[in-house]
Amino acid sequence: MAQKPSIPKGTRDFNSETVAKRNYIFDTIKSQFQVYGFQPIETPSFENSETLMGKYGDEGDRLIFKVLNTGNFLFEKNTIEMPESLNALRIKSLDDLSNSEKIELNKFSSRISGKALRYDLTVPFARYVVQHQNEIEFPFKRYQIQPVWRADRPQKGRFREFYQCDADVIGSTSLFQEVEFIQLYDAVFSALNLKGTTIKINNRKILSGIAEVIGAQDKLIDFTVALDKLDKIGEEKVREEMLGKGISQDGIDKLQPLFTLSGDFGSQIESLKSILSTSEVGIKGIEELEFINTAISSLELKTAKLQLDVTLARGLNYYTGAIFEVSAPEGVSMGSIGGGGRYDDLTGIFGLKNMSGVGISFGLDRIYLVLEELNLFPESVKENTKVLFINFGEEEAMSSLKAVTALRNEGIKAELYPDWITSGKQMKKQMNYANKREIPFVVLVGEEELKSNSFTLKNMASGEQEAVSLNDLISKLK
Amino acid sequence: MAQKPSIPKGTRDFNSETVAKRNYIFDTIKSQFQVYGFQPIETPSFENSETLMGKYGDEGDRLIFKVLNTGNFLFEKNTIEMPESLNALRIKSLDDLSNSEKIELNKFSSRISGKALRYDLTVPFARYVVQHQNEIEFPFKRYQIQPVWRADRPQKGRFREFYQCDADVIGSTSLFQEVEFIQLYDAVFSALNLKGTTIKINNRKILSGIAEVIGAQDKLIDFTVALDKLDKIGEEKVREEMLGKGISQDGIDKLQPLFTLSGDFGSQIESLKSILSTSEVGIKGIEELEFINTAISSLELKTAKLQLDVTLARGLNYYTGAIFEVSAPEGVSMGSIGGGGRYDDLTGIFGLKNMSGVGISFGLDRIYLVLEELNLFPESVKENTKVLFINFGEEEAMSSLKAVTALRNEGIKAELYPDWITSGKQMKKQMNYANKREIPFVVLVGEEELKSNSFTLKNMASGEQEAVSLNDLISKLK
Repeated sequence: MAQKPSIPKGTRDFNSETVAKRNYIFDTIKSQFQVYGFQPIETPSFENSETLMGKYGDEGDRLIFKVLNTGNFLFEKNTIEMPESLNALRIKSLDDLSNSEKIELNKFSSRISGKALRYDLTVPFARYVVQHQNEIEFPFKRYQIQPVWRADRPQKGRFREFYQCDADVIGSTSLFQEVEFIQLYDAVFSALNLKGTTIKINNRKILSGIAEVIGAQDKLIDFTVALDKLDKIGEEKVREEMLGKGISQDGIDKLQPLFTLSGDFGSQIESLKSILSTSEVGIKGIEELEFINTAISSLELKTAKLQLDVTLARGLNYYTGAIFEVSAPEGVSMGSIGGGGRYDDLTGIFGLKNMSGVGISFGLDRIYLVLEELNLFPESVKENTKVLFINFGEEEAMSSLKAVTALRNEGIKAELYPDWITSGKQMKKQMNYANKREIPFVVLVGEEELKSNSFTLKNMASGEQEAVSLNDLISKLK
Repeated sequence: MAQKPSIPKGTRDFNSETVAKRNYIFDTIKSQFQVYGFQPIETPSFENSETLMGKYGDEGDRLIFKVLNTGNFLFEKNTIEMPESLNALRIKSLDDLSNSEKIELNKFSSRISGKALRYDLTVPFARYVVQHQNEIEFPFKRYQIQPVWRADRPQKGRFREFYQCDADVIGSTSLFQEVEFIQLYDAVFSALNLKGTTIKINNRKILSGIAEVIGAQDKLIDFTVALDKLDKIGEEKVREEMLGKGISQDGIDKLQPLFTLSGDFGSQIESLKSILSTSEVGIKGIEELEFINTAISSLELKTAKLQLDVTLARGLNYYTGAIFEVSAPEGVSMGSIGGGGRYDDLTGIFGLKNMSGVGISFGLDRIYLVLEELNLFPESVKENTKVLFINFGEEEAMSSLKAVTALRNEGIKAELYPDWITSGKQMKKQMNYANKREIPFVVLVGEEELKSNSFTLKNMASGEQEAVSLNDLISKLK
């Protein structure tokens, strides 16, 4: 293979510094997940296709990576019906095929592939809960940190392989869960020293209530899409868009207080009460938000603030109660760095009814970019070697390796340069190696040190050198 | 979906206890990798097919999981030539096709799939080194702990998705690396408290030397396969098998000392010297083994022992120097729990010549089974919740959540049962929940505790209860 090797588009290699920084984020999240009582699970990278297909809408299905059956994969059941359209030796692009032919092709692809790579962690979690329901104590608080794969068009910050970090509780409708998830977001971002995040909250029931009040229950998505643009395009344009989507003038007028919603959580709630006084579901949504806000006010967040955002409408296909989204501190241009919500029937798709779930997710890649931009990774994050022993020759190296072994037994990250010096140039090469790898200390064991049973310790930053004993070496480097 | 969901054969779900135990092994290995100066890298789960195909032999190619192209995957380049054999609407099993038709089918499968799941960590590592050669300081000591996938027939202890834990050095031929890898094996297994492992070592050059001496260079594999059975079937049968494979009687006679090889490392080396005195490559192999054995004797291993095993012949397709294999302590019936070796031209397949590599791998799943069998997982390994607050009602729960928050701020794993008690039955349910989850402490905050601003702490093992303040609670649970 003459050409330089490469990796598939949308995937990444991580060097040691990046791995260390990513692990710092993972470990911080994991440690807070555990402090909050969540237990880890892991599921396989690929699931049976029928577990995943049809769970994420048509667009989702298209983005799922399918794994080819192995062995006689084309013919697993000995014979396979080929779609008519494959009869010709040459076939045009899929776009030229008729719709019925496309469906045949999809059937064909399901015959050659029975497994698919995980698209998110929620559906595998639901599958896990149903499959293992008899081994699980409910409410079940689980966390899961694993990669997922999506055949999305790669772009800045969007990859075809990326990690999700999810915590969910299943089997309780208690709003204390929502309260704890807000605290958990605050705890993680505070532990990452990322101050000033905004945890936005909304409730699907508020959105349903508004749609009900204005007589547009069937236009919930059109309505929220338009409302979401309020900040960007202003009230007038939003009204126009709503009208264009068939929402009545009368209904839009009733929303007046929504357009000018302002002030703190409490006063926004009061405005919502006046709008939603006739909607039972809307009132329920307000009660839930009030409970959560009261609890959070009493418990106090460390560095985040909780904000009501009635335009927040993510996951309308599945969320039935609270909806969460976290934004980075002001001044950092970055989409949401976390999100979540409550879904009343998480495991229904696999036949286990009436299991309410609520959960949140952390966006690792975006958090990484934010910490990088704000220079918030601690200096200690690089798991770097502390000391390199220069290799002067077989005898010196053997003596060095004994010292290196002693240092390692004390947990000190130590290395011996493997090849020994046979010229001055090679000495420089070894010092260079320490420099480039940013190893802070170098130890020289040459003829003299061998004789005197001592070690010359050099601080690479200051250039200072001193002769020390092995015990001194250990205590200085520890 | 009415039927109970399942996962693909050869894959596994891991519950929290298993995840915690696996992480204990990963963390122990990782921590020793770092102490020995290895740096982590990560590579994508799938590679371009041409990166993997043809690197593991025909059998390997067959076991590689291929990922279907997405979008108009069948027609990515707008038109695709279908093999003649697909013309018929129904096709028999692959076995009924002629060989040339099979090749056409393979071409076809390469057209619908351009990516494949990682089969091991070595080839992606070689690809990484070549691709990033200008950013890397050589010798490059990297470790990598990631899952790999193989379409092997699943069986006890063999899975289609499993983790590999590899450490390799590339860019130096120094035998100190081999010495350090033996120390590293010893360090990891000692840290896991798995005493009495045997690190077996051989050298490809010894095997080549023997084959040379007996005039059977072309029968190296037949020869080692037969020799490997010495323990099981005895000298006579091994001789028979060798004869049957076409190795000459004269050659086999020269091996006489090999059949009775015994004693310590040093005396085995002496026997080998007498056998290999006429083979240049054999003598080189002996020198290497002697260097390594001398160094290890001088450095001393903690709990493992180093053993020369001339029948060790793993990885003959790629290893060119040292060959390692680790066996579990005596009495545990388990195959090798680790292995590795030196390959002189690791990156040659990707066009970067003359880069010698040496590395070792830890078999996570087998180490797990051994630790389980010997009951060596520390009790503390389960990352379990320390205390559960019983939920007596909204007001009590709110007060409890404040205490829970205070405990969590101190790093204590604490939970509030989310739903409150409305009957005595529910009280029992909450206590049961703590029991089943093996949570060691329970805190009760009822009406009285609310009044007196105190907490009733109950030890679930002893049943003892005491009333304590928040500060006492923190210090008792910390």
